[in-house]
Amino acid sequence: MELVNKFNELVSKQKAYEYVLNLAGWDSGTEAPRGAFQRRSEMLGVISGELFNLQTSKEYQDVVNGLFKVIGELDDITQREIKKAKKNLDKIIKIPKDEYVEYSKLIGLSQREWEDAKENNDYESFKGSLEKIFNFNKKFVSYFGIDDHPYNVMLDGFEEGMSMKEYDKFFNTLKTDLVPFIKEILNSGKVLNDAFITDFYPREKQKEFAEYLMDVLSFDKDAGLMKESVHPFTWNTHSTDVRFTTRYLENFMFSSIFAAIHELGHATYEQQIDPRWDNTTLNGGTSMGIHESQSRFYENNIGRSLEFWEAHYPKLLEIFPEQLRDVSLEDFYRGVNKVEASFVRVEADELTYPMHIMIRYEIERMIMSDEVSVDELPKLWNDKMVEYLGIKPSNHSDGVLQDVHWSAGLIGYFPTYALGSAYSAQFYYTMIKEIDVEALVKSNNIKAINNWLKEKIHTFGSSKTPKELLMDVTGEEFNPKYYIKYLKEKYTKLYL
Amino acid sequence: MELVNKFNELVSKQKAYEYVLNLAGWDSGTEAPRGAFQRRSEMLGVISGELFNLQTSKEYQDVVNGLFKVIGELDDITQREIKKAKKNLDKIIKIPKDEYVEYSKLIGLSQREWEDAKENNDYESFKGSLEKIFNFNKKFVSYFGIDDHPYNVMLDGFEEGMSMKEYDKFFNTLKTDLVPFIKEILNSGKVLNDAFITDFYPREKQKEFAEYLMDVLSFDKDAGLMKESVHPFTWNTHSTDVRFTTRYLENFMFSSIFAAIHELGHATYEQQIDPRWDNTTLNGGTSMGIHESQSRFYENNIGRSLEFWEAHYPKLLEIFPEQLRDVSLEDFYRGVNKVEASFVRVEADELTYPMHIMIRYEIERMIMSDEVSVDELPKLWNDKMVEYLGIKPSNHSDGVLQDVHWSAGLIGYFPTYALGSAYSAQFYYTMIKEIDVEALVKSNNIKAINNWLKEKIHTFGSSKTPKELLMDVTGEEFNPKYYIKYLKEKYTKLYL
Repeated sequence: MELVNKFNELVSKQKAYEYVLNLAGWDSGTEAPRGAFQRRSEMLGVISGELFNLQTSKEYQDVVNGLFKVIGELDDITQREIKKAKKNLDKIIKIPKDEYVEYSKLIGLSQREWEDAKENNDYESFKGSLEKIFNFNKKFVSYFGIDDHPYNVMLDGFEEGMSMKEYDKFFNTLKTDLVPFIKEILNSGKVLNDAFITDFYPREKQKEFAEYLMDVLSFDKDAGLMKESVHPFTWNTHSTDVRFTTRYLENFMFSSIFAAIHELGHATYEQQIDPRWDNTTLNGGTSMGIHESQSRFYENNIGRSLEFWEAHYPKLLEIFPEQLRDVSLEDFYRGVNKVEASFVRVEADELTYPMHIMIRYEIERMIMSDEVSVDELPKLWNDKMVEYLGIKPSNHSDGVLQDVHWSAGLIGYFPTYALGSAYSAQFYYTMIKEIDVEALVKSNNIKAINNWLKEKIHTFGSSKTPKELLMDVTGEEFNPKYYIKYLKEKYTKLYL
Repeated sequence: MELVNKFNELVSKQKAYEYVLNLAGWDSGTEAPRGAFQRRSEMLGVISGELFNLQTSKEYQDVVNGLFKVIGELDDITQREIKKAKKNLDKIIKIPKDEYVEYSKLIGLSQREWEDAKENNDYESFKGSLEKIFNFNKKFVSYFGIDDHPYNVMLDGFEEGMSMKEYDKFFNTLKTDLVPFIKEILNSGKVLNDAFITDFYPREKQKEFAEYLMDVLSFDKDAGLMKESVHPFTWNTHSTDVRFTTRYLENFMFSSIFAAIHELGHATYEQQIDPRWDNTTLNGGTSMGIHESQSRFYENNIGRSLEFWEAHYPKLLEIFPEQLRDVSLEDFYRGVNKVEASFVRVEADELTYPMHIMIRYEIERMIMSDEVSVDELPKLWNDKMVEYLGIKPSNHSDGVLQDVHWSAGLIGYFPTYALGSAYSAQFYYTMIKEIDVEALVKSNNIKAINNWLKEKIHTFGSSKTPKELLMDVTGEEFNPKYYIKYLKEKYTKLYL
């Protein structure tokens, strides 16, 4: 069908623009000099504007709308592409171009502003941009004309089909089933041999271990690379160019280890996607939640398991013989699973982690409901920290300023982190029925686990929705009980 | 004038495209994974095609031609812009778009091919692409319809106003005045204490010294960065984003030191250009020759001077106390100025360096005159090495495959390297009339030298032609006698 070819041609062109903009994003996130940001954001604003023109051109609208009218006649894959394209199109054509360009420029600059603000513990210097970002997003949502709560529109943008109703249910389950359990753990009085955690681990040595981990997880170095950044992230445009970052805190080695394993999870997903999707709208992971299920699976289910350290603790001992001299495998395993109330989400343990997400979810809900101003955010943040974790941040860098997301316009993204952890537990209980995960991890055969995930999840890219994937792989809809079960089993054994 | 505003607007858009393409080039040259190149070159081909459309659009042609007609009424700066634009336009509109896109893709891929070929000493695997690149360039030049030798068209593209006639004269002067002198030096029988040159200097320690050099030369780290690559280069798009690379050979530390100083010369030029040119066609250094005059000035006139090492040898000794224990300042100074016939241009000493360029100039002249095929290049290369330097490369990696330039389509670029060295001597003899360069270098006040160069050369960007700059700064036209004088004075003192 000629119209389908035309669609593919137009998409292919848009993808080239997305690619160079993404590349500029990678550069910004890892190495671009600070002084360059003013001029660069002007130029990237031009390119964003050009992309916007393509995404909203009459030609593209005609093709998408034309195909949408005859969607029943198209094959399954093309149907999915057109539905996705139509949904995006119906939103984006509502945004006036000048506002879109202005917003793109704002986002380009505000991430560097956020970095400075965080470094200087200076919320005041950043709140102006933050307010603009929130207002832009509210305005954009209002333009869409979707008859729903603005936050639902945002949530659906990151996780197809998810809304406050479902998230409320999910977080309520956590509150009911998990919060009392966490309290029990925190009050268990268990004392760990954990001084080694904050010992000094030189940066270069940490890097050596992170490089070792790339091999352990079978990362394809010919199709990607590892670098450093303030906030670890994974970047990709197609299956042969997948990059990720970690960071090295010399007095907290776990940060680089688990950031690396986490990002390697995202990266493995992207590297294992069938290249057939590369030049289509169905490339890349299908949703933030599914993506996070993969990163959390590698980080927690694998990376924080006893079997993993049975296999790799000897290597770590070899690199840090001094620091780990008196630390047994058992101590180390308990150390990487240490539970404590803490301020910073990315350093939080697996068990308290969802509390950090709940706080952000509730705050975003209020922002998008016009229930809170940017002036009130720091206090609101701190109050919720006290409410859920019993601790109050002593500065904004460890509080409201800790995450990059809002500076990048990502509102509605956070809840997918907790959702992803829950998805990963659900996938996990299916996986262990089919392959012996513990034995594979212990024998350093993670490749076999990669293969299972590739076949069941990764290879499909975005050609299946999160809900379809969950049903196809696990045979049921999303069910948080697996997450609760997994956490309770693991931490009961460790602490109670 | 409205037409001028329109011109600026169109240029501004083109610059945004150039920017993202350049950024992709920086990425390719420093870190992009090998596996990514196929897909990335497809996407960059799309963006190059879009830029081509802008550069050849009817609208842009009308504006440039319209302004060119009334050029006498424009201010000096705009005149220079329009002349430059008109010259480029008259060339580019002659190139069919599909050929332009095909060529861009070829260039995107061939640089990685060249890297592989060089690594594997495998000329055969690369010569196909090389031939295509040569043929594309010949074809493009023929499209221009300029009534001149094809190589002259190429030469003028890198150095405005230069042609074979002038280069022949220049190289003949070198042959007459320099070749016998070089022979005298090579046969002087002077024995140096130079075993330290090939001692082992760990990569990380070399990096530490390279970072020290950034401060010595007052590089603005807020407006640029240093990285590593196989072939050192400088990259920039505007004065607040200037990046350069060096490389670390653990058994040849001079490579990283002088590559860093050389690239810092290019980078200083770019960082000191007035930002008023940023969004115009007059940003960036004015020509390859002038650029190279700056890099060579910092590398040779400063970096290989006795005064420089009087100031900085103590730091180097601090970093490498073992390796340099028995090496006096005098020995070290003689070491960095050691003259010998060698294979690799980028490692060649200051004195034999122009011989390497002469070889490339003569070969390019033959290529562009259809006097040699790609099959004959390796032999031709080796024969000329024997003729001018008396040595024959034992493999292609140290011979015809050593330089990145041809794989990037840069034909006619090489001669500017020798020209730049000659320019730098001419600038130097003017400079020492006005400031005490030796004293400033010795007292580690290179900033004062930067300032002189900024005021006389850098700040103007491309708003003056190379010939204008030379005349304005030195009061005379290009004159190679300064180069000969400089080299003879320096090396007579060192060797005879």
